[in-house]
This record gives sequence, C-alpha cells and structure tokens, in this order.
Amino acid sequence: MTDRTVFTFSAGPAMLPDIVLKELAQGILNYNGTGISVAELSHRGVDYKDEIFPSTRAAFNKLLNVPEDYETIFSAGGATFEFGNIIRNLMQGPDLAQYIDTGYWSKQAHGIAKKFKKDGLVQRIESINGLEEVNGLSNLRHIKPEEINENAAFVYICANETIGGVQYQKFPDTGNIPLVADMSSEMFTRVFDINNFGVVFACGQKNFGFAGFSVVIVRKDLIGKVLPGTIDVQDYKQLADKASAINTPPTVAIYTAGLIADYIQEGGGVEAMARQADYRSGLIYNVIDGSDGFYKSPVHSEVRSKLNIPFLLKDGSLEDAFKQEARKEGLLELEGHRSVGGLRASMYIGMPDIGAEKLAGLMQHFAQKHG
Amino acid sequence: MTDRTVFTFSAGPAMLPDIVLKELAQGILNYNGTGISVAELSHRGVDYKDEIFPSTRAAFNKLLNVPEDYETIFSAGGATFEFGNIIRNLMQGPDLAQYIDTGYWSKQAHGIAKKFKKDGLVQRIESINGLEEVNGLSNLRHIKPEEINENAAFVYICANETIGGVQYQKFPDTGNIPLVADMSSEMFTRVFDINNFGVVFACGQKNFGFAGFSVVIVRKDLIGKVLPGTIDVQDYKQLADKASAINTPPTVAIYTAGLIADYIQEGGGVEAMARQADYRSGLIYNVIDGSDGFYKSPVHSEVRSKLNIPFLLKDGSLEDAFKQEARKEGLLELEGHRSVGGLRASMYIGMPDIGAEKLAGLMQHFAQKHG
Repeated sequence: MTDRTVFTFSAGPAMLPDIVLKELAQGILNYNGTGISVAELSHRGVDYKDEIFPSTRAAFNKLLNVPEDYETIFSAGGATFEFGNIIRNLMQGPDLAQYIDTGYWSKQAHGIAKKFKKDGLVQRIESINGLEEVNGLSNLRHIKPEEINENAAFVYICANETIGGVQYQKFPDTGNIPLVADMSSEMFTRVFDINNFGVVFACGQKNFGFAGFSVVIVRKDLIGKVLPGTIDVQDYKQLADKASAINTPPTVAIYTAGLIADYIQEGGGVEAMARQADYRSGLIYNVIDGSDGFYKSPVHSEVRSKLNIPFLLKDGSLEDAFKQEARKEGLLELEGHRSVGGLRASMYIGMPDIGAEKLAGLMQHFAQKHG
Repeated sequence: MTDRTVFTFSAGPAMLPDIVLKELAQGILNYNGTGISVAELSHRGVDYKDEIFPSTRAAFNKLLNVPEDYETIFSAGGATFEFGNIIRNLMQGPDLAQYIDTGYWSKQAHGIAKKFKKDGLVQRIESINGLEEVNGLSNLRHIKPEEINENAAFVYICANETIGGVQYQKFPDTGNIPLVADMSSEMFTRVFDINNFGVVFACGQKNFGFAGFSVVIVRKDLIGKVLPGTIDVQDYKQLADKASAINTPPTVAIYTAGLIADYIQEGGGVEAMARQADYRSGLIYNVIDGSDGFYKSPVHSEVRSKLNIPFLLKDGSLEDAFKQEARKEGLLELEGHRSVGGLRASMYIGMPDIGAEKLAGLMQHFAQKHG
C-alpha cells in the first residue's frame, strides 16, 4: 500500500516505488551504516566495486535471464546517447542497418544513425515502414522475411513507442540478423527471451530509476570493433571488460537501479510486473472502450501499449477541464506529448494500482458529467 | 558544524555538505511539497523546466561571473566524455590542437583527442611537456609564447591534476588561442576569470554532486560546427539552444548541483570556498613540511594542489599501519591512486574543516609514534 496522494503519469522521469524512495533517501544520508552517503562512495572502494555494482548487475541478469554470452553494461547518458553508440559498436563490419519505423522514437534513432560516416563513406541506414492503419487506428505491420536484408548488421525496433502508444506484442522475426530493441519504456514489464536479440537497451527514468543512466545488454560476439572517433566510454567491449567503470560511473543511479531490481524480485519478478502493467492499463482501456465514444484510443486494440496510453476526448475542448479536474485529484502530467497533443497516461513499474484506479474513476466520472 | 564521525578523502565521488545531503534526501521523498520525488519530476514539467534547471544554471553563472557571451551547459556523463566532445565541437575549423601534459588526466585527454579523425584525415594533436623536476619535485613549467601554435584550435590544460597533485596557480597565457581547461577537481574552489578561457568544464562528483554529470562553460563564438558523427547530445550549440534537454537530462544530478550552488553562495561564494581549500590543504602541508622528512610531498611548494595531496612516508612499510589507524579514526580512502601508490588526501567543497583537522592530527600523532 502507498500513502501517496499525488500520482504522476509522466512518460518519464516517472514514479518510483515508495520503498525505493525511502531506501534511497536513507542511502543518501548514510549508506548501509558506513557513515557516509551513497553519493560519496568512491567507485574504486569496496562498497561500490564489490557490492553495489556487481549486485545490481547480477540482479538485472537474474530478472532478465541473461545468459553467459551476453554482457550487461551500465552507461551514463540516456537512450538517445545509445542511439549513436549502437551504430558505433555494431557497424564496423557491415555498412547497412535497417530501422523499422513505428513512430517518434524509432524515427529519432533512425535520424541519429544517418549522421554517421564510416571511413568517409555514408552508411546505408534504411527505414522500413512498420505501421499500418486499420479502421483509422495505428497498427503494427507484419514484417515479411523478404524485407530483411541478409547483409544488414542489425534490424532496429522501438519495442514500445511512448508517444504513439503502440507496443510490439510479438517481436518481428529477423532470422539470423541481430534484432536491436529500444526497451526504454517497457524494460522489466514484459517477459521476453533475450536470446532473440542482439542488443536490448533502456534508459533508467521510466522503469528503473534516474534520468541520465541506461542499461545495454549485448551479445558478446557483436562487439569489439568500433567506428573511428569512438571513445572508450562509448565502446561496449571496453565498458564490459572494465565493469562499466572506465571513468567514474553514475554511482547513485546504479544504486537506485539495484534497489528497484530488488523491489521487482521481491514483488514476484518480471512476470508479476507484467501482470501489474496488464491490470493498470486494462483499467484505462476498459474505461475508454466502455465510454461510448466519449474517449478514443488512436491505437488498434491488438498493439496497445501497456505503459503509455494516448487518448482523445470526442469533444477536444474539454481537455483543459479534464486536466484541471485530474490535477485536483492529484493526478498529474496527463498532457499528450508536445508533438501530438491530446492526453496520455504513462504508467510504469512505480505506478501503484491505486493511481491507475483513481485515474479510471476520474475518467468515468468526467464522462458521466460531460457525456 | 557537522555531526559526522566518518570522513572520506576519496578523489571522487567525494563528500557533500551535510545540509545538501539532508535537502536532497527530503527532495527524494517529496520535492518542495509537490507530493512527488524530485526523481519523478518530468523534465518538461514546470518544476524542472521553469525552476530547477534555470535556477541551477543561474546560480552557476552567478558564482562564476559567467558573461553573456558564454553558454553554460549541463551534460550527462563524466569529464572523460567531454574529452571527446571538446574535439567534436572545437575542431571543425582548424585541425591542430595542443595539449599541455602535466600528468595523468591531461595525458588521458590527449590520448582521447588522438582517436578522432576529421573527414578521413588524422587531426594533429600535439603534446607540450608542462612539467619539470626541481630538486626532485614536480613543478609546472612556464610555457613560452613561441610554444603556442597560432593555428591551433585551442590549447588544453588540466587545471589541477588529482593524481600528481600539481595545480596551476597562474594559468598559461595562450594569447589569442582559446584556452580549454579541465577544472573537474577545482571548480568553485578558486577564483578565476572565465574571460581568459574558451572552455572550462568539470564533472560533478568532486565539488558539485553526482557522478555521471558535468558542466561545460563555452564561449559562444567557438561552437556551432561539429565533426561528422556527432550527435546532438554531444553538440554544445544544440545543448545550449535546448536548455541542456535534447533528451531527458540527468535531473537529480542537476537538482543536487543547484543545492550545492546555493550552499556555496550562502557560505560566501567562490572566494570563501577558496579560503577553505587553502585552510584545509594548509593544515596537511604544514604537517608534511614540519615532519622532519617523516612525510614527503612529491610536489614543488609553488604548485601544490589545494584539493589533492599525494604524500609518501619515508618508511613506506608503515603505509598499511597508517591507513589502518586512519580507518579507526573514521578517515577513509587515503590510498594513493592505483597508478602511483603512496597516500593521498583529497578534500573538496564538501570536506568539513574538522575532517582536515582530524587528518592533520592523526598524521602528527602517527609521526610521533613511529618517527
């Protein structure tokens, strides 16, 4: 149970579990009885080097069943930084990559990939349209095997588009070509088999903590060569070999991620988090679908995100009134992304059930009043 | 006054002021009465966008007297990341840069600079020896005007070498060539005129907070063109134009930096911090110099660092006993850097006077007992 009265539906940074915030605040004041703050621990000292780092990495690996032939790397910077690092690390051999365009974030990654040159040559960074419209709703298109180029270094997807609100329920089959997935918004909220991926990566501020911190899980055989101008803090092999501590790592973010990993484990692991994401999002989708058109989801029911729910009011002029009533109830950050408008509810691991229940209740109440 | 009983002399992450830790812990639990954590604030919401970010940047600018023709940028990642970004941002015009080698960190920056190519050509990244030995002690050499190449994009220095323990007391005069300074270990502990620099930068974990976060202050006319393969989160012009929020910035680190900036301001500003650094380091150097050779500083008295004090025992076999007694007194992380051994005391803004006084007392006591 939470004693919270305010809930934020921001797409990230997002809510963290109460217990994690309490443990973190304690660690800020005095880490584990050492008399100093977790923020003051040397990254070369035993508390960090022999405890916080390895236990956090081990917890991530356990939760995600990461096998021996993968490396789990912690990186300073967000997912956008990794958009570039993916190219730097995976394209020293082949010079072709394919990006499946399913919305804003896959487009962003594709745009960054196109910035790179390799020994003076422009890389071929292809885009495959991954969306189709079905009855006016966004749907994820089935990618045919013949669309995958057998010479590609990798095929790239954004597993869950936070703005469009589409989420792969079943990942595309790319055969022997490594699949690279941005899981920034869904990490730890779905069960998946890492063996089907070359790389998965995610930033921390949605499901495991702080902004300015990311995890990258990469198959060992894919790394070791980088493009020119790649410095070690962007080189996955160097990071892996040096315990993600080539320079001073983001120690407090890593500590926080470890607290959240423990929270997930104690809460029943990724399967339990997936059930909770189902439950929370189901509440909102049920209200939308039962509202007789008062609310509308722009996404086909088969690919609706369990994390980010964009929705529209039939009467768009009521949006401000809706947000105002929501704020009165302590329900914050329900604006749609600045690029699309409308409303959006983002609910990650740290969103208590009661937060989703309150939002669903408000939506029903508001529809009754204005419908 | 502090109620601390444990003091860490780590070169970074390092001690933070007590009041900052308390405010941060409170912000982690409930930011400014909002009912949500500072870690949960959206970077597009008013609390961050209109309050935390601009007030932190303004506080930095005020403390350092940053004039209008400079940009103050917050970056995710450490100083090592900026070693690369300096090249990416400052070398789209000239293809020559000069690095003054004064020890480990200037060598590191030089090594990273050499990794970059520009349109297929190797950049010329020169090294100028900046050290000389005087009576067996490290000294900073006077750089003659004719050593500065008038075609250089910039001349690079590390203002304070944390490992060697040498610190520029007077910066080299590079004429019209922009001077770039890594101030990671001395930021806010010395008064300097930013107008004499093209760029100053510093990572957070020594004097203003968290690891995985840096500030870059750059003259506006130097930025706007970047090397190929530079993504926007590495592009100083893009970062400056977009309030350091191209993607989700390291919000908690920036909040913490703001708390520390306020602490500095309330404590009398940079001049007061400089006096405190003088006082703390003076205590230790006085013990060394008065120890009749029991302790030895490897650095010429004119260029001794006020932040990082490497020292040796005449009888090196006593090192372990010294560290053990120090730990008993709650004085931690006095090991020298793994590359050089010996002992080292690092004392930044967060080190209370009493911590330095306790170390000085222990050193005297230990010398009396074993001398």
